[in-house]
Amino acid sequence: MKQSQLFTKTRHEAPKDEVAKNAQLLIRAGYVNKEMAGVYDFLPLGLRTLNKIVGIIREEMNAIGGVELSLTALQDKKIWEATDRWDDKKVDIWFKTKLQNGTDLGLAITHEEPLTQLMKDHIRSFRDLPRAVYQFQTKFRNEVRAKSGIMRGREFLMKDLYAFSRDVAERDAFYEKAQQAYVNVFNRLGIGDKTYMTFASGGLFSKYSHEFQTLTEAGEDTIYVYEGAEKNGQGQIKIAVNKEVLNDEVLTDLGIKRADLVEKKAVEVGNIFKLGTRFSEALGLVYQDEKGKSIPVEMSSYGMGPGRLMGTIVELMADEKGLVWPEAVAPFAVHLVALFDKNGKVSEAADVLYEKLTARGIEVLYDDRDATAGEKFSDSDLIGIPLRYVISEKTLAKNGSEGDAGSVEVKNRATGKVEIRPISSL
Amino acid sequence: MKQSQLFTKTRHEAPKDEVAKNAQLLIRAGYVNKEMAGVYDFLPLGLRTLNKIVGIIREEMNAIGGVELSLTALQDKKIWEATDRWDDKKVDIWFKTKLQNGTDLGLAITHEEPLTQLMKDHIRSFRDLPRAVYQFQTKFRNEVRAKSGIMRGREFLMKDLYAFSRDVAERDAFYEKAQQAYVNVFNRLGIGDKTYMTFASGGLFSKYSHEFQTLTEAGEDTIYVYEGAEKNGQGQIKIAVNKEVLNDEVLTDLGIKRADLVEKKAVEVGNIFKLGTRFSEALGLVYQDEKGKSIPVEMSSYGMGPGRLMGTIVELMADEKGLVWPEAVAPFAVHLVALFDKNGKVSEAADVLYEKLTARGIEVLYDDRDATAGEKFSDSDLIGIPLRYVISEKTLAKNGSEGDAGSVEVKNRATGKVEIRPISSL
Repeated sequence: MKQSQLFTKTRHEAPKDEVAKNAQLLIRAGYVNKEMAGVYDFLPLGLRTLNKIVGIIREEMNAIGGVELSLTALQDKKIWEATDRWDDKKVDIWFKTKLQNGTDLGLAITHEEPLTQLMKDHIRSFRDLPRAVYQFQTKFRNEVRAKSGIMRGREFLMKDLYAFSRDVAERDAFYEKAQQAYVNVFNRLGIGDKTYMTFASGGLFSKYSHEFQTLTEAGEDTIYVYEGAEKNGQGQIKIAVNKEVLNDEVLTDLGIKRADLVEKKAVEVGNIFKLGTRFSEALGLVYQDEKGKSIPVEMSSYGMGPGRLMGTIVELMADEKGLVWPEAVAPFAVHLVALFDKNGKVSEAADVLYEKLTARGIEVLYDDRDATAGEKFSDSDLIGIPLRYVISEKTLAKNGSEGDAGSVEVKNRATGKVEIRPISSL
Repeated sequence: MKQSQLFTKTRHEAPKDEVAKNAQLLIRAGYVNKEMAGVYDFLPLGLRTLNKIVGIIREEMNAIGGVELSLTALQDKKIWEATDRWDDKKVDIWFKTKLQNGTDLGLAITHEEPLTQLMKDHIRSFRDLPRAVYQFQTKFRNEVRAKSGIMRGREFLMKDLYAFSRDVAERDAFYEKAQQAYVNVFNRLGIGDKTYMTFASGGLFSKYSHEFQTLTEAGEDTIYVYEGAEKNGQGQIKIAVNKEVLNDEVLTDLGIKRADLVEKKAVEVGNIFKLGTRFSEALGLVYQDEKGKSIPVEMSSYGMGPGRLMGTIVELMADEKGLVWPEAVAPFAVHLVALFDKNGKVSEAADVLYEKLTARGIEVLYDDRDATAGEKFSDSDLIGIPLRYVISEKTLAKNGSEGDAGSVEVKNRATGKVEIRPISSL
């Protein structure tokens, strides 16, 4: 994409009311726009980045047998009353509204209820199980405070997967597969080394649930990281314990010592729950087993927020100059910055290089604007695309060997490393 | 995808309260689920179809220079008061809600206001124009009646593009490009021959707006089709007149005779408006021209509903056996139906064929279920994938020549045409 077509302008200052580093940088770089606290528009660069994250999560959910659908935000209160989650005293983050005829509606905070209801049409026998379905869907949550930028939204995109199983054993087998899929996502996003699976409160129906927490000072949570795991190589999933469940029983259950735990700030980037039969019993989702007996379906749910992950990546990787994206999620792979000369040679060479790279399927943002080198470089740093190709009179004059079309300066945004490479080698 | 993994079951009857043919069939075939009138979940087959439509529209919007973003549903009332569209007496289809602190919010019915507000950060000079930005975003409209299935939603996906221009001439040039892009979309969706550009009321700021109306008895609108256009080959855009603006003045403006107009039922599948400076003046979106003078930006907007288009295709193409999809929007290109034998040979051959087709990038729904031929065929007719490949003991025994791996029966869903083709030729 040519930058002259990208309508967003960078800015030097974030809005005064924006306190989160992730949102400050994303607004300054033109990735998002703030409608109100916790409610952000995704502008072209931001939408591209968000979609990259969505794509990675989708691949991992498909790999464990997930099938994608899309449920609605508008919800009739009836099914939520069946599980006692409609009353504002029970769930205090509803946005509620009404049809013209006065019927109460809510904007879905999550989707266990409607999906359980829906699956009654599609699950009848043991042959119809197991099932795993997921969506990327906008959730609405009426948070009292929303000060963490795109890491805590009142309106935000969420990937939620729900698994339906015959029994606890089948459910647990899927639960383990999903844990690994989550680890895969975090590794692919480049935050795997800072992300722990924590033991969290299981609520009414299981001893523990699990969260995935990424270490960052911007996080709202406190966790206790088990440092022994890395020392003795216990495997890929690094474990930690949420503050609220840290007690002697947990330590015994996990076979770890208090002394091996270190307190850290972290952000919850995923959570997974064994729901048991809470929703299937309340809403009547049962299947007939081999003997014709009616059995409530075992459920589990798996949440993950693409926007929150995007915010977390910003918090972890950005530097004083601006955003720094890992290749897997960057809105473009290459930022081609042309420093125009008067005779039009640079412009010509940059146009040709842009066309060639684009034709080869490389995603290029091409700064073809009439702006100073200083403006272009500082915008480029702020936008944070992994590789910057600078093309100018100076680089064009540098030929590796006779007949070459000149060179470009290649700068790695993350490491700052610069090299001169012949255009023919790109 | 293997049909054993697709969790949706077809059904013989639609829900009793569903009166629209499109929703009846889509529910029966497992494409959508009804949460309430005008509020439909998109199940895997439905989501795939919807995404195909979205993909086609996106390509055409990109081709006219559109840049994609995504705005939020939650909206602060302030900017809507600035254009006098907040009051329920002025706009009677709002869903409204509140933050915990009592602040009034609305669920966006459209996005002129927030986008105009947002563009104030990005348009300053004549050099920043023209711009065209668009999104696929969920709109919420509190319709009193919603009886047309997915053709009139209270919650529905909409493509809305907004163009920002220096002056009327620049705006009109884009308006014409967009008209052609709309025609391209309808042609690619297979409804071009039944879709007319109609002259509709222009509201306060222009004499006419334009709608795109597709002829169908399921439509809620009445239009007057100019039959002369086809007779005298006046070009690709077929014109018609909306009932509410049909008068002598229009006939004179268009240079057509009343006698050439035929009354038809139709559904509005797109609408385009010249907004003038109504929003830019109310919200202060101005640019500096070459002489430094502040000028309000000329705006125009371009709406199109992917779900409504999907419903329209159903209404136009479905037959008594079920859905019939054009190739461009079908959830899969091929429905591979295996009629299993006892010795497992058919299953083996079908598995191999499925893998081969899939490896070549062909989207295949593979009916690998343990079900009768009758069930499989009636499901396949209902689901409506363009090509059905039936593989059975009988077809496997049919070899074109020695050494062939047998044949499949290929049936075209739309025409009913059947042919036997060697597997090696597929």
